[in-house]
Amino acid sequence: MLPKLHPVEGIRLGACAAGIRYPDRLDLVLIETAADTKAAAVFTRNRFCAAPVIVARDHLAASPPRALLINTGYANAGMGEIGLRDALACCRAVANRLGCKDAEVMPFSTGVIGGRLPVDRIVNALPACVERLGESEWADAAHGIMTTDSVAKGASRQFKLGSETVTLTGIAKGAGMIRPDMATMLAFIATDAALNPQALQESLRRAVARSFNRITVDGDTSTNDACILLATGRSAAKVGAVDSDSFEQFAAVVSQLCTELAQALVRDAEGATKFITIEVVEGASEADCLEVAYTIAHSPLVKTAFFASDPNWGRILAAVGRAGIHALNLSAVSIDLDDVRVISDGALAPEYTEARGQRVMRKPEITVRVALGSGSSSARIWTSDLSHEYVQINAEYRS
Amino acid sequence: MLPKLHPVEGIRLGACAAGIRYPDRLDLVLIETAADTKAAAVFTRNRFCAAPVIVARDHLAASPPRALLINTGYANAGMGEIGLRDALACCRAVANRLGCKDAEVMPFSTGVIGGRLPVDRIVNALPACVERLGESEWADAAHGIMTTDSVAKGASRQFKLGSETVTLTGIAKGAGMIRPDMATMLAFIATDAALNPQALQESLRRAVARSFNRITVDGDTSTNDACILLATGRSAAKVGAVDSDSFEQFAAVVSQLCTELAQALVRDAEGATKFITIEVVEGASEADCLEVAYTIAHSPLVKTAFFASDPNWGRILAAVGRAGIHALNLSAVSIDLDDVRVISDGALAPEYTEARGQRVMRKPEITVRVALGSGSSSARIWTSDLSHEYVQINAEYRS
Repeated sequence: MLPKLHPVEGIRLGACAAGIRYPDRLDLVLIETAADTKAAAVFTRNRFCAAPVIVARDHLAASPPRALLINTGYANAGMGEIGLRDALACCRAVANRLGCKDAEVMPFSTGVIGGRLPVDRIVNALPACVERLGESEWADAAHGIMTTDSVAKGASRQFKLGSETVTLTGIAKGAGMIRPDMATMLAFIATDAALNPQALQESLRRAVARSFNRITVDGDTSTNDACILLATGRSAAKVGAVDSDSFEQFAAVVSQLCTELAQALVRDAEGATKFITIEVVEGASEADCLEVAYTIAHSPLVKTAFFASDPNWGRILAAVGRAGIHALNLSAVSIDLDDVRVISDGALAPEYTEARGQRVMRKPEITVRVALGSGSSSARIWTSDLSHEYVQINAEYRS
Repeated sequence: MLPKLHPVEGIRLGACAAGIRYPDRLDLVLIETAADTKAAAVFTRNRFCAAPVIVARDHLAASPPRALLINTGYANAGMGEIGLRDALACCRAVANRLGCKDAEVMPFSTGVIGGRLPVDRIVNALPACVERLGESEWADAAHGIMTTDSVAKGASRQFKLGSETVTLTGIAKGAGMIRPDMATMLAFIATDAALNPQALQESLRRAVARSFNRITVDGDTSTNDACILLATGRSAAKVGAVDSDSFEQFAAVVSQLCTELAQALVRDAEGATKFITIEVVEGASEADCLEVAYTIAHSPLVKTAFFASDPNWGRILAAVGRAGIHALNLSAVSIDLDDVRVISDGALAPEYTEARGQRVMRKPEITVRVALGSGSSSARIWTSDLSHEYVQINAEYRS
């Protein structure tokens, strides 16, 4: 399922099976960066952020990373001081092996919240990870960071910046506990372009705002979300400062790539059978549009109707009505399912028929378009349906 | 399952099968009130409120009701002008038959949003409803307002007010699309006490704020919610003005009765296997406490963990962390599942064991208690788990 993932000069990856929670499963990934690699990061806004998030943020503030260590199985969240000590112990083990400083290692964990990180297994598996380090191991790394994901997710671009070719490659994981909301799931992206740290961070910030921050599976923001963008500067391409032409060009490609990865998370959402785009237009503000979009996206009734391929538009109407925006002018609201007008002027459209609604709802990908008729702002998010399998997966996750 | 429902002097009820959406099912209820009955009401805050809600509110403003007509099958919501005309036509038919004014009839509808109300079937069934009118028909009426409810819901109290006996009886329906949030599901309550309209409304407002407005099944606020309190004044008991001793006594019983009915809705929540009480204490404000409580209650991950009897406390912790309250002091947070301390000082409690968590989670009724350690406010809400059956019911609701 993975597209071709172009190697990024200056980035080596290695994945191995450390037996952290399950045997014989790639569950530990090491990413090594060349000297002078710059890094930008966005982390979860969940106040109960996990120990590795705290450590990764501290270490990044101290110096650019020479290595990133990602484990699945346990999230190392909610463990207090012990969690911090365990995350630091992993960093130290990596630093000792690679010959860098502890603070040059960024740790990432994903998996069950609660339960102590098996530091020994991770440390014991490090030599195997190091041995496999290579520039072409992106696909293994994409597999190595999976938890309930059913497919590995990656995206890659090569594009010209002036006369130089730039490579941008990223991997991501996530299928549940997904409403990044100002942060993101685990995603690791690298380029060989050279950017100053400010431009790098700004390109990531913009991309995340319109990609990972515009998806929701179940409205739950994880404690461990992180999205990292690395720039090795090994190509001859130089990206200028924020707002320069080359920056805008680079930032646009980062946004495209992040959107592709974010959509891949939703397509692989736990138990999902449908990929739903929700567009809200003609709002008084972007905040209003997002409020309406997320209210629809989080409604279990709307989500089960999509699962059933049932054009139960009343549930969408009810979600718009309870979204709690002030400027709602009921008689100006229209709702379309793909090309079928369902609601016009705030009530059932005269031309709507159940058969037309049914035709759209049977599709695997559906766009819900809500026009609020009260302004010129808009927002677009992506989400999934709510199926038996979602309940199954999340009822049995720890068993 | 229904407790004994004491008749309320001055209130007659009749239920019949009008064949509105399904054959041979009580789906139409008429409630006739004696002359001089006072009425208080609380309606949905969903901006797309249904036609009957608009009409009922208008009619109540014009004069106290002599009759209430409730149909299931179709919600008569989202139908624009046609919906209003259909609701008014039903009121007129009742008025003609009972010899009152159109505006003395309050209409209520519940069922599928979308689809036109079959006014003819309702009008044709009215004589049967009228024929069955009686003071002892509360149980039939409780059955007649059910939709996806698996049990009829009613509650009744007789209590002394001074030397006089007051009767308070109520029925309610609702099992899904439940997060009343400043309104309520369909509930009809009556007393034979005499109250001035202001005291009646205030007693209902207070009761609803702590009962129907403190439950959630799926976070979805219906377009048709309504809660009505009728006072026939037929007993010798007189309730004084707001804040008088007799008012406080009466209002307290109304609150108890509403809480019993609200909890009955949650216990019968679609697919529910667990009844969950969420108490949030030591908050900086009640708003903060409610925000944390609803974030936990609406988390599909928390709800599926309850369904699985899995003490996956990390999901509760993550919900607290993303609730978006400003004053959150992580290291002051503690979480208990019934009598088992899970989180203390913001991290896993040393005395916690999986076995202790498991023991609580297997129970059919569980209290989650979150102490925020940052103030003296508190809030309590009730909710249910998220099961396969919820998905089943809501995927197949219209089929």
